[in-house]
Amino acid sequence: MSVDQYMQALGERAKRASSIVASADSNQKNQALKQMAVALDESRATLIAANAKDLANGKAKGLSAPMLDRLTINDEAIDKMVTSLEQVAALPDPVGGISDMRFLDSGIQLGKMRVPLGVIGIIYESRPNVTVEAASLCLKSGNATILRGGSEAIHSNTAIAACISKGLEQAQLPADSVQVVETVDREAVAQLITMTDYVDIIIPRGGKGLIERISNDAKVPVIKHLDGICHVYIDDEADVVKAIKIADNAKTRRYGVCNAMETLLVHADIAETVLPELAAIYLSKNVELRGCEKTLEVLKDINAATEEDWSTEYLAAILSIKIVDDLAAAIEHINTYSSAHTDAIITENYTKSRKFLRQVDSSSVMVNASTAFADGFEYGLGAEIGISTDKIHARGPVGLEGLTSQKYIVLGDGEVRS
Amino acid sequence: MSVDQYMQALGERAKRASSIVASADSNQKNQALKQMAVALDESRATLIAANAKDLANGKAKGLSAPMLDRLTINDEAIDKMVTSLEQVAALPDPVGGISDMRFLDSGIQLGKMRVPLGVIGIIYESRPNVTVEAASLCLKSGNATILRGGSEAIHSNTAIAACISKGLEQAQLPADSVQVVETVDREAVAQLITMTDYVDIIIPRGGKGLIERISNDAKVPVIKHLDGICHVYIDDEADVVKAIKIADNAKTRRYGVCNAMETLLVHADIAETVLPELAAIYLSKNVELRGCEKTLEVLKDINAATEEDWSTEYLAAILSIKIVDDLAAAIEHINTYSSAHTDAIITENYTKSRKFLRQVDSSSVMVNASTAFADGFEYGLGAEIGISTDKIHARGPVGLEGLTSQKYIVLGDGEVRS
Repeated sequence: MSVDQYMQALGERAKRASSIVASADSNQKNQALKQMAVALDESRATLIAANAKDLANGKAKGLSAPMLDRLTINDEAIDKMVTSLEQVAALPDPVGGISDMRFLDSGIQLGKMRVPLGVIGIIYESRPNVTVEAASLCLKSGNATILRGGSEAIHSNTAIAACISKGLEQAQLPADSVQVVETVDREAVAQLITMTDYVDIIIPRGGKGLIERISNDAKVPVIKHLDGICHVYIDDEADVVKAIKIADNAKTRRYGVCNAMETLLVHADIAETVLPELAAIYLSKNVELRGCEKTLEVLKDINAATEEDWSTEYLAAILSIKIVDDLAAAIEHINTYSSAHTDAIITENYTKSRKFLRQVDSSSVMVNASTAFADGFEYGLGAEIGISTDKIHARGPVGLEGLTSQKYIVLGDGEVRS
Repeated sequence: MSVDQYMQALGERAKRASSIVASADSNQKNQALKQMAVALDESRATLIAANAKDLANGKAKGLSAPMLDRLTINDEAIDKMVTSLEQVAALPDPVGGISDMRFLDSGIQLGKMRVPLGVIGIIYESRPNVTVEAASLCLKSGNATILRGGSEAIHSNTAIAACISKGLEQAQLPADSVQVVETVDREAVAQLITMTDYVDIIIPRGGKGLIERISNDAKVPVIKHLDGICHVYIDDEADVVKAIKIADNAKTRRYGVCNAMETLLVHADIAETVLPELAAIYLSKNVELRGCEKTLEVLKDINAATEEDWSTEYLAAILSIKIVDDLAAAIEHINTYSSAHTDAIITENYTKSRKFLRQVDSSSVMVNASTAFADGFEYGLGAEIGISTDKIHARGPVGLEGLTSQKYIVLGDGEVRS
């Protein structure tokens, strides 16, 4: 069987399973999730042994230490997977929720019902825990899933898939509700992202390069997260204490995350007040600072920022700083260079906060809060499958609701249209 | 200037205009719409003269009578455009609407704000009135628009565009908020649907062939409406009076519309009761009937349906009829052959109606109502840009809300994440 045929068969089975999962009741889906957790818990030795093969292959191939770290399954990693399954089981079921029911002049009653998307394809890189996270969120939201992990995690993912299947079986849900692509052939991805007859949406998780390649070639709609070039703008009417606390937290809480601030914008009138104190904090934490010309007049010992800095997601202990003349300049900088992920203003001024909220075109826009809050757990979604920087369907952290859609329902009593 | 350069420049201008339109206040947008109506009303002679050129070219090229009919602008058509602009001006502005604001444990307050999509590209065929409809809905929802009409309507569309520009100017909105592509080169479409830097969404309006071509080649997300293969299922527990009234209305109200029923499904136990009476109605209206084998036993004089009939959108006075054994068979037929547009069940049974609502995977699912209601005006959306048979972003009739998205907003008081 060719890879194409293999993928088509996988797609067909997923499509068939999807109509069963879509109308499975909440209890059955939750049972499946809990039984998956039990299966993972009982298969620790098998999982760790399968993972050992991947780790050995990875070392032989010369994978970097951080990549090997992300690939590793140990008891702690299994504990986390078990807990996350139990958490997803505890979340409310979004499917079937009906909203906005109202009577119309014609006599019909119109509303919207929340429904699964159908079949979701997830393409991801080395972390095997994504297999569990993605499968559980897609199942809970009533979707069938096709998972394509990285080739370096193939043994781990296959072992995890066996536990997922066991859970599905025990809850009498079709095993095809969650399928793992068990070939490392790259052609499988090319098929997955173009099988519009079987796949309703693709969610890629990984580096920007992977996501750009997939979006470029996909025929199936993609929910994607490209990068996180987040800004904090300190207005001249900012409360200095809040400004310093937030600018510190947004940059230094964690460096490698997409909601970390990459560029700090400061109003010219407050630059002398906040920048020296902030710079001292950053330098004490070994953050490299790169400033615009005006910033260099205030902070004399730092490097100059180049045009490229404004559009760079460092994901590292580096911060670019720009002094702007007013709110309009800050908003223009953000709408030009931001990746439409998360941007914040620090101000006590009511009118400026409203303007910022309205005019900044990003998936999360904040006033007097750290960009670090842009996260599915912090937003109370319970879990997230990713953060969308797209403009349609779902923006920002995507939880169970983002994996569903709404259809119209009409209840009548024999009405016809004149 | 090459077509590519021309389109890139158009896109860049649209993008720039979009940020101004996005934060224009409701009054300003409504003024623009009303001034467009005034301009159209005052330019009747110019519009009709420009249209005469298109009609003459169309006749010379041998366009069919219905196509020439759709292309024609007369006083009545101008009246309709004027009225539709006034109606859109009277609709509530969706932009900036805030929902679901709530405090979270961290102290931040989280909600969602409705925002425009940005730049919308509309690709359509011969009807010049689409120019006004699409431009007005996109403007009201805060988006910039690039309109690419059919080459056969180029003079009409350019004349309408001049009125639109006048309206925009008088309301002090950028003229680039609505741009009409003024070249008939097909390369313009190829550019428009791949300019992901400038265009946020494409809405094609026209025949299935056009829409399939565009979806296939587009890199920009597409909201599309492929076809309307709509079903009515008459259950054995249907109220016969309602069943006959609805099955008649769904098929014969208008034949050429996407929400017309194309296949009637009838439970075997009620077929003898309803089919002869229904057939008499259909035949009196010259509707051709095509039946499955079992139907032919009840209605002896009609043609046999072939496999192809079940997946055909007739858009004509033709109806295929199938007798099914139970609800499950009806749902399976619908989920196999329906175009996921609109499907209805006629039943008095509570449990079966719930099952049908839940399991039928279409953008509108109805109980005891005619499929003819699937329409933006009937649904109270005020107007519609089209009916989406897609599963993400917007399903069913798409009004102003479907032309917007929601971003997260966070209001804080200096909160940082631990």
